[in-house]
Amino acid sequence: MDIEGYLADGAAVVAKTPEIEAIADKLHDRGYSNLIYLGMGGTYDELGPQVYFVDKYAPELDAFLVNAAEFDVLGNKHLNKDSIVITASASGDTKEIVAAVKKMVDAGIEVVAFTKADTTLGKLATTVIPSPAITGRCDFSYYMFNILTLRLLNRRGDFPDYDAYVAQTKNIFNDLLEIRKSFDPRAEEIARAYAHEPYSIFVGSGALWGETVLFSMCILEEMQWVRTRAVSSPDFFHGTLELVEPGVPVFLFKGEDECRALDNRVEKFCREHTDKLVVIDTAEYAIDGLDPKFRVLVSPMILTALTTERLSRHYETYTRHNLQYRRYYRQFDY
Amino acid sequence: MDIEGYLADGAAVVAKTPEIEAIADKLHDRGYSNLIYLGMGGTYDELGPQVYFVDKYAPELDAFLVNAAEFDVLGNKHLNKDSIVITASASGDTKEIVAAVKKMVDAGIEVVAFTKADTTLGKLATTVIPSPAITGRCDFSYYMFNILTLRLLNRRGDFPDYDAYVAQTKNIFNDLLEIRKSFDPRAEEIARAYAHEPYSIFVGSGALWGETVLFSMCILEEMQWVRTRAVSSPDFFHGTLELVEPGVPVFLFKGEDECRALDNRVEKFCREHTDKLVVIDTAEYAIDGLDPKFRVLVSPMILTALTTERLSRHYETYTRHNLQYRRYYRQFDY
Repeated sequence: MDIEGYLADGAAVVAKTPEIEAIADKLHDRGYSNLIYLGMGGTYDELGPQVYFVDKYAPELDAFLVNAAEFDVLGNKHLNKDSIVITASASGDTKEIVAAVKKMVDAGIEVVAFTKADTTLGKLATTVIPSPAITGRCDFSYYMFNILTLRLLNRRGDFPDYDAYVAQTKNIFNDLLEIRKSFDPRAEEIARAYAHEPYSIFVGSGALWGETVLFSMCILEEMQWVRTRAVSSPDFFHGTLELVEPGVPVFLFKGEDECRALDNRVEKFCREHTDKLVVIDTAEYAIDGLDPKFRVLVSPMILTALTTERLSRHYETYTRHNLQYRRYYRQFDY
Repeated sequence: MDIEGYLADGAAVVAKTPEIEAIADKLHDRGYSNLIYLGMGGTYDELGPQVYFVDKYAPELDAFLVNAAEFDVLGNKHLNKDSIVITASASGDTKEIVAAVKKMVDAGIEVVAFTKADTTLGKLATTVIPSPAITGRCDFSYYMFNILTLRLLNRRGDFPDYDAYVAQTKNIFNDLLEIRKSFDPRAEEIARAYAHEPYSIFVGSGALWGETVLFSMCILEEMQWVRTRAVSSPDFFHGTLELVEPGVPVFLFKGEDECRALDNRVEKFCREHTDKLVVIDTAEYAIDGLDPKFRVLVSPMILTALTTERLSRHYETYTRHNLQYRRYYRQFDY
């Protein structure tokens, strides 16, 4: 990992805050009816926590997570001319998102896109927030999404601690670097033990559910051709539990929100029924100077640093399967 | 299968229509702010299509699908004193649902439960709709859920064809019996070929997504200990596709709604990349005298008759694993 590059990118992402705040302020002053988070695959997963945060802090504001491909065929009843659509695409050409945004913009709806300005999506969207980072990473995305959402909530009076949150996370990428380093030997150990397993169960919940799916689907399935089964902590007990037995790997991603009680239940069960339980608990990783009440907001950044960033690299070593190689995805039309 | 018993049960379920209508009428006359469909595991999956139907036919009415375990720790911002909660539990003692309903009823919220009257849930709920069938089956549940939802919509003016729908489905269990019979040799063939596969992908969408998860999670995982990966037709292309290759079974459950276009895309891709594609298409199964515009409403009943009802039995034969046997589920506290 290019450490200097990472820290420089992180600093640039943090420095982007005033620009994102200005966009949030403009949207707030204009007014809006609800928030539509539009994603596809990995971006759908990454935007999931934003809806969780709106639901948590803003009881009177509606937010919906919308799958772009479903929107393209079904539409969405919650979308209206006063909605704000928030979307993202690193490539700027995810075709389901481009098609959805085209319809939305044609209908006069505000679409804020985290993407490069000179891409198809960047040209379509009414507001573009390009990443200042040279290398795209999910912790950067989560950071910027949080700024936009939390500033919007703050302006409504729903997240009064906004300034403290921003102040306390301005060095977060240093912490996330240290977190990567401290986890790395364990990541190596986990990958060595499990990279060749024929089947692994991934369990998560609440604000971490999106990253749980992202890692199991977009990283392990797509980039490693590893067979996974992602299931939420509550659903685990309604089917998947019967597959757990000695020899079956279960990865539990424990979070720091209300759903942790559901994670604990999974942990207790799995400790008794498999010898291959891997618990990755964001609570074990410190963010210097962060008020405990803000932990939930950064837990997806911690989990992505641990898994999508580091665990993936060690899987790659043991599977000898380059993370960049795809046989189908974006290789031809389908 | 006890054919006479099934037809007698089906007739009793259809005969229940006026009673369910009277409940819907009473709820309509009282007025309500939104519909909260509360489920857990299989009932969550079964209630999924109801939200799809409300979204389709009633653009101004909000309906939400709520996981009971998540509700128990998170609450739900959309629930208010004027909500109607609709839930179900065959046993009447699903603990996550009981805990959620207790909170709701204590808050003075109307809870309609499809369950036995003399169960914990039956005693808690403000309105109980007991199944008149001696043997519980998902097609009976779907039928009764539809009556309640569609009557509510009809009274709002959102589903004017309600009477025609009811008239045209009054003999549906005869059709669903014929559908079972005609599919049975194919079910036997599919189970023979795939019951021992180490990993199978299940794909569905739209009104069939719930039943897709129900079959793969509640039947194959829970009752057969078969390793499955359920993925929606849109998500399939954002990770799971990379696992498809000759020898990997993909089950595609094709529906009859707007999402069929997404199913077709999966089918085209899989025809080219695996020799083990199983397409189960509800459109191939006739319901006598049913207007094509009502097909989407009965498609979950058709799919459950084919899979949860028949395919499961043939898996059982080949896995020699009794569908009733669980090592963990409801066997002890966890």
